[in-house]
Amino acid sequence: MASKSGAVEVSEGEQVKSKSQLKKEEKLAAKAMKKEQFKAINKANTNDQESGEDISVGKYGVLKMIQSSKNDVSDRVFVDVKNIMTLLADNSVWIRGRLHTSRKQCFMVVRQQQWSIQVLAVVSDTISKQFVKFCSNISKESIVDIKGKVTRTPSKIGSCSQQDVELHIEELWVVSQSANQLPLLIEDASRPVKGDDDDQGLNIKVNQDTRLDNRVIDLRTPANQAIFRLEAGVCNLFRDSLTAKGFVEIHTPKMINAASEGGANVFTISYFKGSAYLAQSPQLYKQMAIAGDFDRVFTVGAVFRAEDSNTYRHLTEFVGLDLEMAFKYHYHEVVDVIGSLFTSIFKGLRDNYQSEIKTICEQYPVEPFKFLDPPLKLEFPTAVNMLREAGVEMGDEDDLSTPNEKLLGRLVKAKYDTDFYILDKFPLAIRPFYTMPDPDSKVASNSYDMFMRGEEILSGAQRIHDSDYLIERAKHHQVDIEKIAAYIDAFRYGCPPHAGGGIGLERVVMLYLGLDNIRKVSMFPRDPKRLTP
Amino acid sequence: MASKSGAVEVSEGEQVKSKSQLKKEEKLAAKAMKKEQFKAINKANTNDQESGEDISVGKYGVLKMIQSSKNDVSDRVFVDVKNIMTLLADNSVWIRGRLHTSRKQCFMVVRQQQWSIQVLAVVSDTISKQFVKFCSNISKESIVDIKGKVTRTPSKIGSCSQQDVELHIEELWVVSQSANQLPLLIEDASRPVKGDDDDQGLNIKVNQDTRLDNRVIDLRTPANQAIFRLEAGVCNLFRDSLTAKGFVEIHTPKMINAASEGGANVFTISYFKGSAYLAQSPQLYKQMAIAGDFDRVFTVGAVFRAEDSNTYRHLTEFVGLDLEMAFKYHYHEVVDVIGSLFTSIFKGLRDNYQSEIKTICEQYPVEPFKFLDPPLKLEFPTAVNMLREAGVEMGDEDDLSTPNEKLLGRLVKAKYDTDFYILDKFPLAIRPFYTMPDPDSKVASNSYDMFMRGEEILSGAQRIHDSDYLIERAKHHQVDIEKIAAYIDAFRYGCPPHAGGGIGLERVVMLYLGLDNIRKVSMFPRDPKRLTP
Repeated sequence: MASKSGAVEVSEGEQVKSKSQLKKEEKLAAKAMKKEQFKAINKANTNDQESGEDISVGKYGVLKMIQSSKNDVSDRVFVDVKNIMTLLADNSVWIRGRLHTSRKQCFMVVRQQQWSIQVLAVVSDTISKQFVKFCSNISKESIVDIKGKVTRTPSKIGSCSQQDVELHIEELWVVSQSANQLPLLIEDASRPVKGDDDDQGLNIKVNQDTRLDNRVIDLRTPANQAIFRLEAGVCNLFRDSLTAKGFVEIHTPKMINAASEGGANVFTISYFKGSAYLAQSPQLYKQMAIAGDFDRVFTVGAVFRAEDSNTYRHLTEFVGLDLEMAFKYHYHEVVDVIGSLFTSIFKGLRDNYQSEIKTICEQYPVEPFKFLDPPLKLEFPTAVNMLREAGVEMGDEDDLSTPNEKLLGRLVKAKYDTDFYILDKFPLAIRPFYTMPDPDSKVASNSYDMFMRGEEILSGAQRIHDSDYLIERAKHHQVDIEKIAAYIDAFRYGCPPHAGGGIGLERVVMLYLGLDNIRKVSMFPRDPKRLTP
Repeated sequence: MASKSGAVEVSEGEQVKSKSQLKKEEKLAAKAMKKEQFKAINKANTNDQESGEDISVGKYGVLKMIQSSKNDVSDRVFVDVKNIMTLLADNSVWIRGRLHTSRKQCFMVVRQQQWSIQVLAVVSDTISKQFVKFCSNISKESIVDIKGKVTRTPSKIGSCSQQDVELHIEELWVVSQSANQLPLLIEDASRPVKGDDDDQGLNIKVNQDTRLDNRVIDLRTPANQAIFRLEAGVCNLFRDSLTAKGFVEIHTPKMINAASEGGANVFTISYFKGSAYLAQSPQLYKQMAIAGDFDRVFTVGAVFRAEDSNTYRHLTEFVGLDLEMAFKYHYHEVVDVIGSLFTSIFKGLRDNYQSEIKTICEQYPVEPFKFLDPPLKLEFPTAVNMLREAGVEMGDEDDLSTPNEKLLGRLVKAKYDTDFYILDKFPLAIRPFYTMPDPDSKVASNSYDMFMRGEEILSGAQRIHDSDYLIERAKHHQVDIEKIAAYIDAFRYGCPPHAGGGIGLERVVMLYLGLDNIRKVSMFPRDPKRLTP
């Protein structure tokens, strides 16, 4: 460990010095620098001239920028805040974390992701007034290295994740200083959301745009730390579950030469001397992989929608979790695989992400997500009947409106006690041309949606795998055959029957957690009005 | 199992029939349809009128399109071709695969991904002439269901993956017919590539564009089946290795409001009434995640480069495997993590993908990939010296040209017997403005590249985490500060020292396998001249 004090300004290209030389220089320089640092940090206290000997010299200060100098190499061991428990009482430990708050002169809270601990800096025979004052002037959100003695607290500290212990300061070094003025405070951004607006009358709320404009700070709240870890978990569970079932991951191009489904809602790219489009779905490519004998494939990647929808649940760019699978006789072979995929995801979250869910619930209280194993599967006419019984007027082949979807979700929850279900056999009339008609029905198709808390999170179907029939159905839908020639050609050289679906990752996370806005679960969301940061 | 014969044309909305009724109708219809099917399939043999009783009626034909009818549900068990071994001798099994070849009248090869088996259809007291003829007229690449008796072969069948057994046909049903004319033959596309051009004088080669234009067929070759499975493996190993080390997966936007590094080589999108750009790298977002306290992050996703480079190793869209990590004192903490990440990937491929590597080597013979554990790490000046000793003239701060990179790769291989190494401490002058200068040197920076078989597959560095210093360095590089304001702002509110890097997935796979063109490892490659399929 060396040059921790910011005092040693090693000039570029300087020769290596002996350890004792360095130490001597360090001490001298530390003294010289101390006052300067104080000036810099204690801008607010210019009138206040400290005097007298500082018994804590060399125990605190601003570190020189860590630049990976040979002299920076250290074998110091840092402890994670989450691991500081009473078991460690009376030991001195080093932590690196953010200064979350400094209340009064001597109480600090240091935060590390979703964990936090109280640190006490009290003037004593080893801690100088100057040291304590230095601590109290560090800007919030600065990154600090602290050495402190783990000490049991007389009563639980409600405001910290580590409630039974605190650190009694021995050393403190500022690693990276934050600007004094923060565009938002973590405390405000972390405040629990309550149903009753009156309850939070006096508390400052941070609005969504302020959060998103300053995402590097907003991401530091315990809830956000947990949300994006849980989101990573959903991705992992998706992939692991499918890999275990023999699926192969593929990567599909985002730049395509023709708009996949007509030309609406598609972003145009200038591509050298011509133009291209951003893919609205990897569907053609997943299907080509099936025609190319990969049997079962999935892909995780960006999907683009140029819809000018400014709602709580639309993004112009989101993460698609897509899968496609050849089957032998019946597309229900695929529906069952997707159903059990969701069961794996829900079980995985329940079993391995309790700590994250708990942290999120502290800010956004929500009912636990309920699911059945195996999942509930309803047919479209059953849903229509349930809605009609609830007073909704709709035709047999009408699509579900968003309010009706939500109502249906509530009816299903009341009747079956599940927040997840599969709705099978959508009317053919309201599905795309490549959807396989149900041969046993005049109106139905081999297609399905899946819902979480009454909102669609997956849409899928058996696709037509016969090029002649595909042409017939495309003509029926008045789709220009020439424009989809490449798509049709994919099925000319033998293709197994197959089905699949696409899942919106952000919607799954939003609805699993019962959050009210998709921007809460997209790290850097994109909508018609937001392209930054 | 029902309606397997194509004979039963269940009209839409028809009522369900009793099983015996169905069977009777099926038989009758099968007879009636047989001749029609023959006409359709045996177009080439119109002169040849079969006559006499067909003892194999109901044992072969063209299946009705599998449309997931209620009647299609079957409990038939299919066996994977790869699992058909002598252990199963004398058992009858069902397989679904592609007709790979039919040689002479009675030998067929059925292919399933990288596996294949010989099927014998010989006229006997249970197999009619008509059945055998039907078999011999099925177009290659059609998907067929075959029931056959597993039979030991007197000698090994060199042309199949299953060399000790064959199937003696009992039933055959065409599930999906291929067009008769194939744009390329799997046999041609699978032919081993030999170093000596003379060796393959008479054999048809399939050129790259033909392959890519007909990717659904080209993907079916055993080598391609194995290549993309191995590529999925690299992704999995990348993620698993990092997840085990506490990294969190994040998703970064591809549509951004400003070109990340100047405006060159960037694709422009029309974004509603304005415009946007396609991200050339997720670097800013990874760094924001670090400033946002995620500590260690990775992301897998599309990366876009509008370079008009038409070479064997450039794509306009590729898959980036990116990571970023906060460290305590020295960026070598990160370099070591990345080094051990590559070791995990190489070990994982060696241990779990032998079968894929073997299949690929049958077409593209290549030296096995060699690596050291821990990996070799050289400093830039050492590399310069090695090159100078080999006769290259270059300055201390010159970048490595592509030929010099390759030469260096050969020199390193000869001296250290490794195809992978890390080159550390690149000259500051040739790295981007955000690269942390080496405080112990006048010319070096805290940056590194990593190489496989002499080609760069990762570029990375310690990034400047201090906004003031970042501005200073940006000015030094004459970067317009206003244009990178958002980037600089990310570091104003405290940020730990961090380093990271970006890996090109396709390059890793190409170089691991020693392939000669990146288009071989991109399922649907994009280059300045190719946007399809």
